[in-house]
Amino acid sequence: MDSRGRLQGIFTPNIVPLDARGEIHEEELRRYVDWLIDHGVHGLYPNGSTGEFTRFTPEERRRTIEIMADQAAGRVPILAGAAEANVRETVSACEYYYELGVRAVAIVSPFYYRLTSEGVYAYFKEIADRSPIDITLYNIPLFASPIDVPTVKRLAAECPRIIAIKDSSGDLPHMMRMIAEVRPIRPDFSFLTGWDAALMPMLLIGCDGGTNATSGVVPEITRKLYDLTVAGRIDEARDLQYRLLPLFDSMLYSAEFPEGFRAGMKLRGFAPGKGRQPQSDVQQLALAKLADQIQCLLAAEGFVSAPVGGCATRPAVDANQVARIVRQVMSELQGRS
Amino acid sequence: MDSRGRLQGIFTPNIVPLDARGEIHEEELRRYVDWLIDHGVHGLYPNGSTGEFTRFTPEERRRTIEIMADQAAGRVPILAGAAEANVRETVSACEYYYELGVRAVAIVSPFYYRLTSEGVYAYFKEIADRSPIDITLYNIPLFASPIDVPTVKRLAAECPRIIAIKDSSGDLPHMMRMIAEVRPIRPDFSFLTGWDAALMPMLLIGCDGGTNATSGVVPEITRKLYDLTVAGRIDEARDLQYRLLPLFDSMLYSAEFPEGFRAGMKLRGFAPGKGRQPQSDVQQLALAKLADQIQCLLAAEGFVSAPVGGCATRPAVDANQVARIVRQVMSELQGRS
Amino acid sequence: MDSRGRLQGIFTPNIVPLDARGEIHEEELRRYVDWLIDHGVHGLYPNGSTGEFTRFTPEERRRTIEIMADQAAGRVPILAGAAEANVRETVSACEYYYELGVRAVAIVSPFYYRLTSEGVYAYFKEIADRSPIDITLYNIPLFASPIDVPTVKRLAAECPRIIAIKDSSGDLPHMMRMIAEVRPIRPDFSFLTGWDAALMPMLLIGCDGGTNATSGVVPEITRKLYDLTVAGRIDEARDLQYRLLPLFDSMLYSAEFPEGFRAGMKLRGFAPGKGRQPQSDVQQLALAKLADQIQCLLAAEGFVSAPVGGCATRPAVDANQVARIVRQVMSELQGRS
Amino acid sequence: MDSRGRLQGIFTPNIVPLDARGEIHEEELRRYVDWLIDHGVHGLYPNGSTGEFTRFTPEERRRTIEIMADQAAGRVPILAGAAEANVRETVSACEYYYELGVRAVAIVSPFYYRLTSEGVYAYFKEIADRSPIDITLYNIPLFASPIDVPTVKRLAAECPRIIAIKDSSGDLPHMMRMIAEVRPIRPDFSFLTGWDAALMPMLLIGCDGGTNATSGVVPEITRKLYDLTVAGRIDEARDLQYRLLPLFDSMLYSAEFPEGFRAGMKLRGFAPGKGRQPQSDVQQLALAKLADQIQCLLAAEGFVSAPVGGCATRPAVDANQVARIVRQVMSELQGRS
Repeated sequence: MDSRGRLQGIFTPNIVPLDARGEIHEEELRRYVDWLIDHGVHGLYPNGSTGEFTRFTPEERRRTIEIMADQAAGRVPILAGAAEANVRETVSACEYYYELGVRAVAIVSPFYYRLTSEGVYAYFKEIADRSPIDITLYNIPLFASPIDVPTVKRLAAECPRIIAIKDSSGDLPHMMRMIAEVRPIRPDFSFLTGWDAALMPMLLIGCDGGTNATSGVVPEITRKLYDLTVAGRIDEARDLQYRLLPLFDSMLYSAEFPEGFRAGMKLRGFAPGKGRQPQSDVQQLALAKLADQIQCLLAAEGFVSAPVGGCATRPAVDANQVARIVRQVMSELQGRS
Repeated sequence: MDSRGRLQGIFTPNIVPLDARGEIHEEELRRYVDWLIDHGVHGLYPNGSTGEFTRFTPEERRRTIEIMADQAAGRVPILAGAAEANVRETVSACEYYYELGVRAVAIVSPFYYRLTSEGVYAYFKEIADRSPIDITLYNIPLFASPIDVPTVKRLAAECPRIIAIKDSSGDLPHMMRMIAEVRPIRPDFSFLTGWDAALMPMLLIGCDGGTNATSGVVPEITRKLYDLTVAGRIDEARDLQYRLLPLFDSMLYSAEFPEGFRAGMKLRGFAPGKGRQPQSDVQQLALAKLADQIQCLLAAEGFVSAPVGGCATRPAVDANQVARIVRQVMSELQGRS
Repeated sequence: MDSRGRLQGIFTPNIVPLDARGEIHEEELRRYVDWLIDHGVHGLYPNGSTGEFTRFTPEERRRTIEIMADQAAGRVPILAGAAEANVRETVSACEYYYELGVRAVAIVSPFYYRLTSEGVYAYFKEIADRSPIDITLYNIPLFASPIDVPTVKRLAAECPRIIAIKDSSGDLPHMMRMIAEVRPIRPDFSFLTGWDAALMPMLLIGCDGGTNATSGVVPEITRKLYDLTVAGRIDEARDLQYRLLPLFDSMLYSAEFPEGFRAGMKLRGFAPGKGRQPQSDVQQLALAKLADQIQCLLAAEGFVSAPVGGCATRPAVDANQVARIVRQVMSELQGRS
Repeated sequence: MDSRGRLQGIFTPNIVPLDARGEIHEEELRRYVDWLIDHGVHGLYPNGSTGEFTRFTPEERRRTIEIMADQAAGRVPILAGAAEANVRETVSACEYYYELGVRAVAIVSPFYYRLTSEGVYAYFKEIADRSPIDITLYNIPLFASPIDVPTVKRLAAECPRIIAIKDSSGDLPHMMRMIAEVRPIRPDFSFLTGWDAALMPMLLIGCDGGTNATSGVVPEITRKLYDLTVAGRIDEARDLQYRLLPLFDSMLYSAEFPEGFRAGMKLRGFAPGKGRQPQSDVQQLALAKLADQIQCLLAAEGFVSAPVGGCATRPAVDANQVARIVRQVMSELQGRS
């Protein structure tokens, strides 16, 4: 275990802004890093799924970490996505990121081919045996070979270099099962959730934090939700979780991932540029409409002004009203039980 | 809405004991009903998935409700599973259960054929228009056509007779989405979770209770978990949720459903009889082994004595230890944030 | 094995017509039976998925077989769907259908609950041990617990009463694997496909026939496709398979199953009545549109006249043209290889 | 369309042999290319799924094509896998392979992220607009975003550069639907199946050929199966298809893909080296056992001698016997109909 302690808090899986030629927009990326740190995120997580690591070349992935490590300059820890084409290339990336001084790397389970548990184990074991830097497992069963509970336990038991898991399944009992198996043998092991929609309950059952894409758009909310929850201010945390949900859903489900988050980033004053996955005319129209919806949600939270065309006088679902009613139900239950 | 108020608390989806001839064992069922009520469950939910409704004849399903309504005698509300072969038969069952005085019926979404949202809507709408008794929607996407959020909202808006949804998906953000859409237009609507492994977090984000199969085996724990959670005693509730998890997992995943719960019921002193789904020799051996495991878990909780062959000196995972460690992590986070 | 030989040819999984009160329309059902036999189907398969067995009561399912066995009067064999709530009820139905003189029963794998292979095995084994009548396994993994290849082999080896499998997975290599495992030990065992879209290739790799819903609407085509294929007239068979495909797809995918086939049956001059699954307004509009499409496809085949509103001057895809081009490609390949 | 005509016949998706240091083993690769051509394959398909394109660096993928194009020297056409990190990189690879003189490229649908149909369309459209070389779409829904029928049609209609699709879904009616939609508007368009287990029926319904991994191990069989089928010698073709099935299944399902094919290649006298995906001890033992099984299957076909430990006196399933019985059933059906 690293002397710097367990990974904790909200890590931002950041979008990489591109310039007009489609290259990494270094200046904007540096500005974005500063803004994120200034707005309270505990760490940064480049080269993740939100960061579209598969759409960059190996050289570009390294360049992204170079820029961000330089800009962060130790103000917050960096968790660097380090998955490359094979074990050798991945270990080489680990070595490079180690030299850059990032806190740890995150390595997604092998994708494209769906591996068995044995294959997933063998892959991470070999990397862990050769990496000079701490490793976070990254489980995202929707996109990559699943890392099941026995495999997490086995790797945690055998590999001191593996210090955390980031789980984006959104499955709360699954997280509890991992914690129940791993915490007793590895008290230094961290559990991070990638599912913003369940951040509060995940923290309440024992997660150490999250790598949450919403924190790249509304870092103020994601961070506050974390603070309220760990402070045990459950009622306020629940209110905020209900307010975060429509923002997360809009950005996640209304466009090809991560276009919704790119749109949100733009609304907060950054120039993300055009993504590398081409969008059809139909998709571009849908995206413009989505941007308006997100702007309305952000305007309701006071972060931006409403779009020129205005917003519906009130949103389809008023998060404040929902929060109020849910609170009332909770006190009823409490009075009755 | 019924004057008797919103559905709340823990409802037991009970197994129906069978006698040596494979018939409903009335005496044992009555004894079980008394025991469940005495051990604190808030309500009973016969003819659910745990109650193997599909494996009984229509006549037997009615007989089960007759016996249980008579035995409960109003001490706790009954939520009667009423799904039959088609709308006409289902409405007829609703009428019968209404006469028996049960609190409400629960109707699972059409199964075997996977219906679209429109089909699911049309099905429940026609039943709701004709039923004399309050209806709980039952969403269990693993087994039946899913009831999506817009459909729940549409039905809640159009059908005052529909007063609740029982959701067994275990998907926490899905529950939040339903609550966010429905509570503002139907404050009387109840949300019940069927996923015991997430009972505490589900209650914390606003559920009214649950229909939880563990409450048929360890009603003391399930009820206490409910009480601690709604009382805001989060640390103790989390401890208990971690203790309930291995029990739930053992009974749910280690045998053909609901054989694990049948084994648990037997260990608590009831004679469930042999289930109606035949078990191969291999399955029977596995079941005997599972019964020992469950007995060890129950023994660790003080409900039964250890099996003759003894238990491992300590369980693979010590729930107490896990709870202790998780608590410690939580306070660390709190200190830090 | 029954002296009457292996199940072979096209069995029609028939819709049950309902009268204005929603009851079984006996007269129309008898007329439909005669028409199907007159149009060349080799057998009848009531109480299947197309026959909506789950939407009828146990009494109605028996009544359907009574009427059809009486009407067929031995002209063609009947394969009677006999799945009931549990083993006892299913065996009782087997006994009854045996008395009625049907050729065999078909029993779908347990549904609602998803059983393991051991559970599927135990279920069919117990029924086979107690049934007086030959049994066809019915594998439809989309709706019911899958019957995997080792389980089919095990049941074929142990249960002489089990004489066939109807497989609706549409997975051709899966069918080959079953044939490869079972034929050597049970030459009397039949393999029937429920996937009309692959009837020709399924026959070419060794199936004995099919239970094909299209044969309830266009028995002339399905039968002719069978005849051409077994006669080795591959080019003509392929042409016909390409002509059957859009009919099958329209009826299967354009409406809630089996509404498309009900619409087709109506177009052929029968009064199927309204199905028991309610249809929303949106669904009813879609269904009317679908009926027109099916009518155009049937008109193109010469079975009915075009709808009043007319058809597109030529269909989006001209099956004749497709067939012609495919033939040409085939001869090119032949010339080249 | 290229003047060299439509893609036809069997293309081998080849494994890339590695040397002791894990680098591309050029000499062995050249020897393997010669052997494949000498054994009758119609073309080569490097950088496919069997070729583990994701486990090589961009530079190595180019190197593989360089070596193979040089070695093939125009004797057979090469279909070069050209998927890279994004559109720009992919187009650049297309340009390079064009210069190398390969016949066409194959581009798998975007993977990791699951794109919608619009996204899949936009991706291929942009590549097709900029590529100097003919393109084969590669649909493998198990691993990558599915390319649905309307999208194939749309791309075929708009992009003359797209000249074929390789479909590895194994879904026969799906292939027919594509052929029915595309052939009338693009007679030059090729349809290749990647599912060896259904090669004969796929050819019979109109495919032009296949990219079949078995042809890298038993090119004699795969080629002969193709020849017999297009020659209309159905009985012999079916026999061979039944013989190919256990070989395909063994190599595909008994180990992490494509380890089974690597083992097969080794048995045919080539040194594939160790794959880049690490194998656990458990996996290595399983692989050794599998190699024996494959050797027995190959020995039964006369390609290699039996393993030292011997084979079971006869295989669990005797493909010859199966073929004989299936033939007999076919003639029975023919006699009867």
